[in-house]
Amino acid sequence: MVILGIDPGYGKIGYGIIEKLGNNYNTIDYGVIYTNKDLQLSSRLLQIKEELNNLIKHYKPDEAAVEELFFFKNVATAIQVGEARGVILLTLEEENIPIYEYTPYQIKQAVTGYGHAEKGQIQRALKLILKLEKNPTPDDAADALAAAFCHANFRRNLLK
Amino acid sequence: MVILGIDPGYGKIGYGIIEKLGNNYNTIDYGVIYTNKDLQLSSRLLQIKEELNNLIKHYKPDEAAVEELFFFKNVATAIQVGEARGVILLTLEEENIPIYEYTPYQIKQAVTGYGHAEKGQIQRALKLILKLEKNPTPDDAADALAAAFCHANFRRNLLK
Repeated sequence: MVILGIDPGYGKIGYGIIEKLGNNYNTIDYGVIYTNKDLQLSSRLLQIKEELNNLIKHYKPDEAAVEELFFFKNVATAIQVGEARGVILLTLEEENIPIYEYTPYQIKQAVTGYGHAEKGQIQRALKLILKLEKNPTPDDAADALAAAFCHANFRRNLLK
Repeated sequence: MVILGIDPGYGKIGYGIIEKLGNNYNTIDYGVIYTNKDLQLSSRLLQIKEELNNLIKHYKPDEAAVEELFFFKNVATAIQVGEARGVILLTLEEENIPIYEYTPYQIKQAVTGYGHAEKGQIQRALKLILKLEKNPTPDDAADALAAAFCHANFRRNLLK
């Protein structure tokens, strides 16, 4: 089963793609979609959709794990990130990819066993679990990998 | 010029379509798209896209006016409405319809001459301006008509 993890954002959207083979995990790809700050709002949303669609076409994920967001400096930022998140959910829905949502707490808990873990701890844990050569960076990509792993772990528990 | 006004929301999306003929306005249609509360989040977003697309295909608007949103009870609501708004902007962008955004203050100002007007005042002003037989309802549809008129008014000032 191929799982696409997504850390939603407006200027930066983290993605992480892992394959679950029994109880082992194979890291397929991870990175960040950056949107062009010089473009109008709606053009950036279209950019998110197109780049996410490219990833879907290329890696054919079976399921997606999207981080839920709660904390923002202000309402304007919450709306902007919500706009990007809406486009991400729509794109997955249009491609018929089942969507699972996890809170930051659930994701940290799954990766490190501790729901309030810091970025560095998460990245070190991911390196071990996913047998990476180095800590995954940047943060948005690591968070997306963590979301994907969280879902893989949830799936494993389901199938027990 | 046909203008599509939109009052973004999650469960209810107001729309209003007017035609600007010189300095006159012809009201083509107005109403509300309701999304199904029993569906999953992402399915509701797809529903918004599909119903908005139906309106676009039917009425072929030249430009769109979308209300900007600022005030929410809490961040969770702001994100949800943001998600719907993102899908609305994306749908317009995909159909190559130029998008103009107006604050509630700008819209009220355009319709009634007073930026803090109440709902009832706006609906009565719209009835007069758009030569409707009755005050436009429900509120979401009236707000969308107001956004469309605000943009028509802006356009008229541009062309002076």
